[in-house]
Amino acid sequence: MLDQIKITLSHTTHPGNIGATARAMKVMGLSKLALINPKKYPSAEATERASRATDILANAEIFDDVESAIAGSKLVIGTSARTRSLPSKLVTPRELCDIIKSNSHKRPISILFGTENSGLTNEELHLCQYHVYIPTNPDYSSLNLASAVQLLSYELRLALCEESLLPEQVLEQSEQPLSREQLKGVLEHFDKVMRITGYLAPNQEKHIDMRLNRLFNKADLTQSEMNILRGFLRSVEHLHDKRANSDKPKDSD
Amino acid sequence: MLDQIKITLSHTTHPGNIGATARAMKVMGLSKLALINPKKYPSAEATERASRATDILANAEIFDDVESAIAGSKLVIGTSARTRSLPSKLVTPRELCDIIKSNSHKRPISILFGTENSGLTNEELHLCQYHVYIPTNPDYSSLNLASAVQLLSYELRLALCEESLLPEQVLEQSEQPLSREQLKGVLEHFDKVMRITGYLAPNQEKHIDMRLNRLFNKADLTQSEMNILRGFLRSVEHLHDKRANSDKPKDSD
Repeated sequence: MLDQIKITLSHTTHPGNIGATARAMKVMGLSKLALINPKKYPSAEATERASRATDILANAEIFDDVESAIAGSKLVIGTSARTRSLPSKLVTPRELCDIIKSNSHKRPISILFGTENSGLTNEELHLCQYHVYIPTNPDYSSLNLASAVQLLSYELRLALCEESLLPEQVLEQSEQPLSREQLKGVLEHFDKVMRITGYLAPNQEKHIDMRLNRLFNKADLTQSEMNILRGFLRSVEHLHDKRANSDKPKDSD
Repeated sequence: MLDQIKITLSHTTHPGNIGATARAMKVMGLSKLALINPKKYPSAEATERASRATDILANAEIFDDVESAIAGSKLVIGTSARTRSLPSKLVTPRELCDIIKSNSHKRPISILFGTENSGLTNEELHLCQYHVYIPTNPDYSSLNLASAVQLLSYELRLALCEESLLPEQVLEQSEQPLSREQLKGVLEHFDKVMRITGYLAPNQEKHIDMRLNRLFNKADLTQSEMNILRGFLRSVEHLHDKRANSDKPKDSD
């Protein structure tokens, strides 16, 4: 799905932004880049900022004018920070992704980005079927060109890529959650040791147990954490036993 | 809300990324930046890449270690591209925003970003209550540091900022939609002229009208577009009238 989308940069001034665009695209799984009359390209700066996304630069198509760049596209989308004199309704990146998803017959897609300073020209904007506006701080809306590509590529990946969003995490045995029986064992162990140390009086009941129960539920206790707590509790028991043993001879003095 | 969030960069190598981070933050309305032992800072490169977000650089706090940087934070979030040996479950940026929204008592918030090459250290990751993972292409997950800040700042703005996402668009009179009565007028005008030109036979009915009705409904016709279409139709009527008038003398020859 993502390889049906062509990121199209019109009259880009800084070659660094072309390189950073290639990297921003590749990291989200987009691959098709088109350049309309870039001011300075190819360029060592573009290659450097592309990091290891130079394959996208190498495969980039270069055009003289916008009509040639979008000739094969069945859906043409313009990005705009300007809000006046726009010929149609603005959509957010997320709304745009819904439109793209529900119009799966409109492929391939071109998404146009204008120059760094002034964005798409009125002529270019009029060629677009939708105009996407990235929400920004009204007091400082100076979104970098490659950052704009990054944000849209990210939204497109979330919307269109069928891979799971998070990498699979394989939990080691030590990170597995406790059964209720195991948690009950921890609580009973605490109860026993708290009575040994005198923190709980012999007739005192339940209240502290329930607080600890809540604490360990919130903590989502794991096997290894259970082992740490019970190991510590056992060490307190040993300390008590040793004290008891060393007290004995004293009594027999 | 956004000013309760501190973007915290740990041991950043390239000063350009610090500047680009400041710009990425400001464009989404974030303002608090903390730096832990940046390799080269202050730096002309940072200032240049910050564009007009140099106020964020000027106000940035600088710390020697991570514990000092997060000392006042009630919610500490780590960003991670690594998935092995992580002590806890990963969340997506959008899930993270839900967590931040539903834990409004946990403020201020620190979001930690590690070095460009290797991310946060294990020690830093263990200090974090949540670990956010930005979905990327598994074959090329080399997300630029400032781009990662840009994506998270964008999600935070969408989730937490109460301003409307799109700027208000004031529709000029010419861009207002048609009433049904106006649309019906356009359709009747077409019908009339299509009979004048002979495109429709006198007894032919409805079918073409319905197709045009559908077309104009899809097009979401505006006042100015209605005026263009009816102006054109009138010009056809005039042409027909002239033809009829010029034909008359001929008949009387």
